[in-house]
This record gives sequence, C-alpha cells and structure tokens, in this order.
Amino acid sequence: MFEDLIVIDCSTVLAGPSVGTFFAELGAAVTKIENPAIPDVTRTWKLLSEEKNTAISAYFASVNYHKQYLQLDFKNTTHFNELVRLIEKADIFLSNFKKGDAEKFGLTDTFLHSINPRLIIGKISGFGTESDRVAYDLILQAETGFMSMNGTAESGPVKMPVALIDVLAAHQLKEGILTSLLQRTKTNKGQTVSVSLYDAAISSLANQASNYLMEKHIPQRIGSLHPNIAPYGEIFVTKDGKLITFAIGSNKHFQILCSFLELNEFVSDVRFATNVDRVSNRKELKEFIQTEILNLEASEILTFMHQHFVPVGLIQNLKEVFENSESQKLVRTETIENKETKRVSQIAFQLKS
Amino acid sequence: MFEDLIVIDCSTVLAGPSVGTFFAELGAAVTKIENPAIPDVTRTWKLLSEEKNTAISAYFASVNYHKQYLQLDFKNTTHFNELVRLIEKADIFLSNFKKGDAEKFGLTDTFLHSINPRLIIGKISGFGTESDRVAYDLILQAETGFMSMNGTAESGPVKMPVALIDVLAAHQLKEGILTSLLQRTKTNKGQTVSVSLYDAAISSLANQASNYLMEKHIPQRIGSLHPNIAPYGEIFVTKDGKLITFAIGSNKHFQILCSFLELNEFVSDVRFATNVDRVSNRKELKEFIQTEILNLEASEILTFMHQHFVPVGLIQNLKEVFENSESQKLVRTETIENKETKRVSQIAFQLKS
Repeated sequence: MFEDLIVIDCSTVLAGPSVGTFFAELGAAVTKIENPAIPDVTRTWKLLSEEKNTAISAYFASVNYHKQYLQLDFKNTTHFNELVRLIEKADIFLSNFKKGDAEKFGLTDTFLHSINPRLIIGKISGFGTESDRVAYDLILQAETGFMSMNGTAESGPVKMPVALIDVLAAHQLKEGILTSLLQRTKTNKGQTVSVSLYDAAISSLANQASNYLMEKHIPQRIGSLHPNIAPYGEIFVTKDGKLITFAIGSNKHFQILCSFLELNEFVSDVRFATNVDRVSNRKELKEFIQTEILNLEASEILTFMHQHFVPVGLIQNLKEVFENSESQKLVRTETIENKETKRVSQIAFQLKS
Repeated sequence: MFEDLIVIDCSTVLAGPSVGTFFAELGAAVTKIENPAIPDVTRTWKLLSEEKNTAISAYFASVNYHKQYLQLDFKNTTHFNELVRLIEKADIFLSNFKKGDAEKFGLTDTFLHSINPRLIIGKISGFGTESDRVAYDLILQAETGFMSMNGTAESGPVKMPVALIDVLAAHQLKEGILTSLLQRTKTNKGQTVSVSLYDAAISSLANQASNYLMEKHIPQRIGSLHPNIAPYGEIFVTKDGKLITFAIGSNKHFQILCSFLELNEFVSDVRFATNVDRVSNRKELKEFIQTEILNLEASEILTFMHQHFVPVGLIQNLKEVFENSESQKLVRTETIENKETKRVSQIAFQLKS
C-alpha cells in the first residue's frame, strides 16, 4: 500500500509511535529514532512479571512494530547530520517534542521544510503546541469530562482503563497525515499536522457533547444501565459462572427472553409488560431473571439469543477475549532486539479491490 | 480540502454518519439518504427535555453536519434510479446495511462498482459483514474486554459513558477510506473498505492487549488509582468544592506538592519519602493532603502546579468542560430543518502549509 513512503518517527510513549506503526503496517519504511541517553520511556514501563534485563516492555511493543531502530543524539553534530540526511529522503516526520525542544534540537518546521519541502510533519502535544503543561492520560480524562461521566453513582469519577485519549489522538494524527498526503498529490508540498490530546478528547465526546451543548444536559455517572430501557446493562451470572448482559430494546425481545427463561407470564404482567414498566421495576425484574439464568450455561443462552437476534453479550476479561479466533486475527508477532513481542494491529479496516 | 469529493451517506446511527460528517467538514459535498419510512433511528433518540415535534435530536445532530438530506425508498423504481444517478457521480458510498440488505436493495458491491468503478464503498458492521449478530455498543464493550477492566473493585464491570467503540470504528473507516483515496490516485479504481465494531474495539486495547498477549496479565478493575505510583488518581475536594487529581510521578513533584501544602516534613517522613513508601501508605497520605486542600481554592492550586510543571487536573463535568474557550473552538453550529443544532467537530487536527 505505502511501500513508497519513508517515515522518520522521533516520537515516544503511545500516540506518536502508534502512528508510525500504522504506516509500517501498511508497508512504509519506518525508522524510530531515540536519544541514546533517553530512549523511549515506555521501554521501562514494565509489569512486575516482566524480564528486567531487556529494553523491550509489553507497553513499548504494543505500539512499536515493523520499525527499524536507530539511536541518535541530536546535539552531536555527526548524529544530527545523519538525521538530516534521513529527513531529506523522508515523507513523514513524527514527534511529540515538548514546547521549546524543536528549537533546542534545531528541528523547527521552517528548518525541516527548508531541507525537504515535501515533508509532512506530524506533531502530538498535550494541550496544543503553545502550551507547556504536562499531559498525562489521567489529567486529560479529568479535564475533558470523561472521568465525570465514567463509573456508577457510588463509585465516584473513574478513569477509563486504557489510555484512550492517546489512542484517539493517534487516530486524529493518522487522518491528518493521510489528508495531507492526498493534498501533496496535488500540490507536491508538505504541511504540518498538529494534534493535541485535549482536542482529540473533546472531539470524542460525540452525543454527550451535543446533549450538553443543545440541551444543557450534564451527564451523570450511571454505570452500565440504560436510563430509559430495561433490562439493558444489568449483569447476570450463569450456571457456569460467566457474566452476561442483555440490551432488551423492544417488547419482542422481551417476549423472546421470557419464553426462553420460562417466564411467559411476565409478558402480560403489569410490572413488566411495557418498557416503561420494566424500567420502573427493573430491580425486581433483575432478580427474577437472575434466578432463571443461574440454571443455564452461558453457551445455551448465547446460542438461543443469537438465533433470535436478541442483543446479548458475555462480559469477557482479556484472557477470554483472546480465546476468540476473531480477535487472534488482529494479533501481530515480531522479534525486536531478540525479544518476542505481540500486539494487536493498528489496522482494523479491510480493503478489497 | 476535499471540495472535489462527492459522498453518498446511506448510513445510520453513530459511526457511519460521523464519517460522512468528517468528509463534509473537510469540504466534500455529502448527501445523507434516508428511507422515508424508516429515517435514521437517532432522530428519535431524545432526552426527556427535548422538543417532541421535531425530527432532529441532539444525538442525531452530534454526528450529522454540513450534509444535504434526501429521502429515497430504494424499493421504489423512480427513487432507486435517482440513487443510481447520484452514485454514478460519487466518490464515496457509506452504509451500515445489515447482512442481506445490500442484496435486497440491489446495492451490492458488484453492482455499485459496475456503475462506478472509481467508487469507494465504506461499510460498518457489528461483527463483520458475514455475521448477522445485532451490535449494540454495550454488547461490544462487554465482549471485547472493556467492561471487564472499567470501574473499581467494588463497582463491578462498567460500560464506558460514550459509545466509544462506534467512535473508534468511525476512525478506522475514515483511515481506510483515506488510504483507498490515495490508492485511487495511482490506480484510478475504487475499493471496498469494511470495518467491524468488534475489530475496531480489539485494535484499541493497546498496551492492555500486549500485557495479556506477552505476559498473560489479565487487567483488573482498579478505578483511577495508578497501582505503582502515589498519589496518582486520588481525588481531592477543594475549598470551592471542585474535584482535583494529581499524577505525582517523581520525588521532585512530591516535594513541590508538599512545599505548596506546607507539609515539608513529609518529604523525609519514612511513610512517604519514596514512591514505594507513598504507595504503601497511600490512604493515610491521601487524608493528610485532603485536609490541606480543603483550605485552598482550585485556581490557586492549578496556577502553582502549572508554574512548577506538576501534572494536575480538575475533574470537570461537561458544563465546566464547555466553559473553557479551548473546547468552544471545536463547537460547530448549524440549522437543520429549522432546528438550531450544535456538536463538536470531527476534526481535531490542524493543517498548516
């Protein structure tokens, strides 16, 4: 796909490196350049179980794949000149330099475009290129509203369990660079593409943003339960100890569920006959359903519900997730610096000619 | 940017329409086509506060912007022929047809490419184009591991508060289509780009995926607290009733925090001197810090910490989020069918030539 593209990736941590990996997976030649004195910090972000005597961690592996690795100290003239030669031939240059670093390293946009006018410069920052605030995923999730909405009434605000703001910022940078590559086919000129974690987070508020902007509705933490539909988000334990949840959006789905659970009388029960009734009496309904589900294996429930197109899903941990052959299709393996590494692909789209 | 692109958007709900809006924001001419008998269901997904007598909801507005609207019944020959004429001139065709619908409507890939070989066909499905499973965000979050990791030890599995799997799938489709547009500049041929919500979710597991795949580590629900760093993720209440959190990743940051709170003796206190000590005694430490913070306004804390580059953030609800002028820059307003609508931009990257 992108076999003719050359990418110089001077970025660290999650968002920038995952953009480099995206282009590498699509065929580009990607060189990750690290300062020998301060290599990518994620090389040291290890679980307690990880080998101490390797410079590769699972975190590092998750967003670095199919790259060449090179150590260059930008303040060393020989190294700097080598970097310049690489940039002269490159299509994309990635960085997450903090404010002032581009000037310090002599790698300003003006300089980069002076040696390579076709270069597309991709930049990740926390709060915009003019801010010197330190950006951690926790802080971004706090300030952009995600923590205020995530959790239950009792739990208090909760951070989401993946650095999703970084993931979303990486998507924005990929889209910006692809757009810029399309522009370049017409203009033959490179551009600078900048993304802040803050903007990427705000842009991801989707319907919750419009609910506030149009209706002044301030979303509260309501856990998994759908406020206006029941049973929807309630979690049940099966006979074989699995957790299962339903999204019963219509009376028809409720009838199918009741018929399967031999609770047919509930379909006309005044407590449960309509969705409004079910929402009003959802706790009581949950207990009745739980009693029946405790006698059933997860697999029997899933098979029946899939056949009848009732939305149902198991709540799976990552072990269970990766027991599924569909998820395994996205796993990519590579030996980096003698260490076997694994990660999921950045590419979740399929192209067919 | 994309002023020369024509997009036919036959998709509904969140992911597909947001892809149409993405291209519309970048200048493309986007026509959203709905079946007059079954318009986009999100037109009816309203908060209780929303006007009943309009066909526009905040949800609908959040992912539909800068589009032309057209109602066509694909089973009506005149309408179908009008659709064909539009597709003949289009660059991109978007749909989230459920399995079998493309055949039913006479809009298979083979037919679409026979009338327009340059057409890029973008498709969103729940579990792949060959699956007929019903896809709800709740079910996807359950089956791909996100719910298992989200929440606290006490809360049980919790759904994340935005339909992020849809948002992530939309990003994948944008990237796939942009990649395909780049291919087309060389081949002059369109392709089919398919994305499933399932694959988009798996691809977003990032470092958590590698932690499991490489180390068999099954992530547990740990709320906001960083398991190996303290104070990190603890939530404090300020004098003016705001919620604030810190990411104190180093002894230097801890010294600055202690100096500000006039707790200098803690820097050499055996309970708190090192990060390991602080993690061991994090509950006790939290109470001491909370006592001091209750005497301080949020703004004084933020000003001092920003000056000293200590990572800190307010936990803000959406009202507070949109009081910030930086977030307002991403708000887009448009009157659709006589209704004033607002949403955040799909575009969180900035291009500079």
